[in-house]
Amino acid sequence: MSRLVMKFGGTSVADIERIRNVARHVKREWDAGHDVAVVVSAMAGTTNKLVAWCREASVLHDAREYDVVVSSGEQVTSGLLAIVLQEMGVTARSWQGWQIPIYSDGSHAAAHILGVNGEEIIKRFKERREVAVISGFQGIHKETGRVTTFGRGGSDTSAVAVAAGIGAERCDIYTDVDGVYTTDPNVVEKAKRLEKVAFEEMLEMASLGAKVLQVRSVEYAMQNKVRVMVRSSFDDPVKPKTDKNGQPVGTLICDEEEILENQVVTGIAFSKDEAQISIRRLADKPGIAAALFGPLADANINVDMIVQNISADGFTDITFTVPTADYDRAKAAIEKAKAAIGFKAMEGANDVVKVSIIGVGMRTHAGVAASAFKALAAKGINIRAISTSEIKISILIDAAYTELAVRTLHSLYGLDR
Amino acid sequence: MSRLVMKFGGTSVADIERIRNVARHVKREWDAGHDVAVVVSAMAGTTNKLVAWCREASVLHDAREYDVVVSSGEQVTSGLLAIVLQEMGVTARSWQGWQIPIYSDGSHAAAHILGVNGEEIIKRFKERREVAVISGFQGIHKETGRVTTFGRGGSDTSAVAVAAGIGAERCDIYTDVDGVYTTDPNVVEKAKRLEKVAFEEMLEMASLGAKVLQVRSVEYAMQNKVRVMVRSSFDDPVKPKTDKNGQPVGTLICDEEEILENQVVTGIAFSKDEAQISIRRLADKPGIAAALFGPLADANINVDMIVQNISADGFTDITFTVPTADYDRAKAAIEKAKAAIGFKAMEGANDVVKVSIIGVGMRTHAGVAASAFKALAAKGINIRAISTSEIKISILIDAAYTELAVRTLHSLYGLDR
Repeated sequence: MSRLVMKFGGTSVADIERIRNVARHVKREWDAGHDVAVVVSAMAGTTNKLVAWCREASVLHDAREYDVVVSSGEQVTSGLLAIVLQEMGVTARSWQGWQIPIYSDGSHAAAHILGVNGEEIIKRFKERREVAVISGFQGIHKETGRVTTFGRGGSDTSAVAVAAGIGAERCDIYTDVDGVYTTDPNVVEKAKRLEKVAFEEMLEMASLGAKVLQVRSVEYAMQNKVRVMVRSSFDDPVKPKTDKNGQPVGTLICDEEEILENQVVTGIAFSKDEAQISIRRLADKPGIAAALFGPLADANINVDMIVQNISADGFTDITFTVPTADYDRAKAAIEKAKAAIGFKAMEGANDVVKVSIIGVGMRTHAGVAASAFKALAAKGINIRAISTSEIKISILIDAAYTELAVRTLHSLYGLDR
Repeated sequence: MSRLVMKFGGTSVADIERIRNVARHVKREWDAGHDVAVVVSAMAGTTNKLVAWCREASVLHDAREYDVVVSSGEQVTSGLLAIVLQEMGVTARSWQGWQIPIYSDGSHAAAHILGVNGEEIIKRFKERREVAVISGFQGIHKETGRVTTFGRGGSDTSAVAVAAGIGAERCDIYTDVDGVYTTDPNVVEKAKRLEKVAFEEMLEMASLGAKVLQVRSVEYAMQNKVRVMVRSSFDDPVKPKTDKNGQPVGTLICDEEEILENQVVTGIAFSKDEAQISIRRLADKPGIAAALFGPLADANINVDMIVQNISADGFTDITFTVPTADYDRAKAAIEKAKAAIGFKAMEGANDVVKVSIIGVGMRTHAGVAASAFKALAAKGINIRAISTSEIKISILIDAAYTELAVRTLHSLYGLDR
């Protein structure tokens, strides 16, 4: 029978009643004949409390001990869900990261999964159809045997890695939304749920602020060809809604080749977490970019879009963006290095937004960018900076125009229909 | 340098401030040159909350999953204490039961420790004087690799087992009292702290209601010759009180041979958790005891003192005690089996108390029992039943006489001095 991974987040397991609801979802799939591995997060609020204790214990706490403390939250949920499943007549057993094991590297508090050994779980599927209830977010460092955690949202990655480890047909991520939308439905009423999204597209959407899945989980799914479905945990656990084809309502994130009707543009994402800094009249000479961005790297500030104008009379202008939270620090770092860099003026703005047009179809369709610029110009929206990749065009504009720009682009590429 | 185990209970680690206080105790011993392993319980209240969740999940919850859930409490404390120690400049690392490992049998929720592998901890003592912060109460089943717990108070046993595993010179159990007393100081003002108690004596005291140590931890200490010291966690962590010999204030539980000045009687214990049942005029024939106590065993009721009178005209009387909580159930079970047993009448009382006189010196001193009976008779105290062992005399009396009897015996054996 086909194997299935189901993942539930902290809100879905916040108390015993909700854990019972999760168990009904699991029982449904188990009754339908699937061999099921469930991945669970800590009960909502638990991880925050544990993190606060670590901070209270020491501001500069050892990440290895932090991992010991915070990983306890998932342990509680896995045991409780196993108990509830057993009471419902479903064979079940809990598993911690170290028991499976889920191996990771040693980057404590933000570890990367190296692989999941699915042997014992598969053996128990075969022997007694035992549901594996697995603590998300946690693993074990292969060399030291210490507990590791994967950072916020890491349970998504756990679920995908378990799916890869047991060769699951699909990994269902239950969230508070019923799928991935063409854009934020709070901004564009006509936003539509996407039936399928390619891994690459989802990767851009995840990193651009469509907060449905952790970026790393999408990367892991893409590398290991794990089909991931985003679906709603609020759906009826016994008789979930289905679409016109009888499939569960949700968005399947899969290989490009599985998507038959490719759109040129799949979605419009936007991120308000951007601040713009422009440096005027830098000497246009080798090494100037290094002199400028070195101090930012030293301050551990991520630089996103970078635009450099063509040089005129030996001087140039550079514009780039940083996360809003780092805006003041970034300006201070550059100001401090002003003599070493050598420039005339620094300008900046943190009331800006990055709007992105995403679609694997862009690879084979020219003119997507040109039509976007034209449509925005027609609405009087000024473009501050542009950066592009194979399947994405990002445009920096004034934050006041966010809704107008997103709606305009959503219509332009036929996503309203 | 000598190795030391220090154990702190839930009240001592109830919040970060108290954990900091525990760390100061540890740092004191570490600074003094000891290699230290600390065993900690869950933060006060945590285990109760986790147990309540398991019950809410299912009344008949799987003990294996219960163990997964409740063992998370100690995990949190061990990580937090390691963080606090590190901040104080003490090299420290947390250890869960499965990491050391602390092997146990498979009696989930009440598992017995089979042994502790101290190798890695000793290695780290030698390499970098690293303090081992160990989660109490939990181990791992050697065959299945599942997490086990040791039942309430199990952290005491963890501490003693760790001490045996690393060959510690002493295992210090920090409690809310500064030692073991000749009797309950709330009853006898003149009760005195004992400097030393033999394992066998402590075993009787622990099982008789001197609630300082878990019985199993004393058994483990006796079998493995681990010297255990009961001392106060309220003592100043930097400069703890010392006695006239410069030794820390507390009670050392040790081998009889280490106690030079042996008293005949070491202490007077009492237990109010007793109810008396008397069966009148049973046919005095083979198998009658089995017929009587079989139904109680089937109902899982522990029978403590058993007294059978000499037979007269083919009939006999039997008196025994059961825990107060089981009094009604016990009477009902016997009533139900009345036809099979065959007796004339059943009488009972649950306003009784068992007073016990304890001392290894009794082995070599005759007349202890006789003097007790005489002293109690002089005070008009009626004896309902008597049972004795090599180092103990237990006497069942009316509860109203508890204080009078305890004070009388405390004076009689010179414990007031």
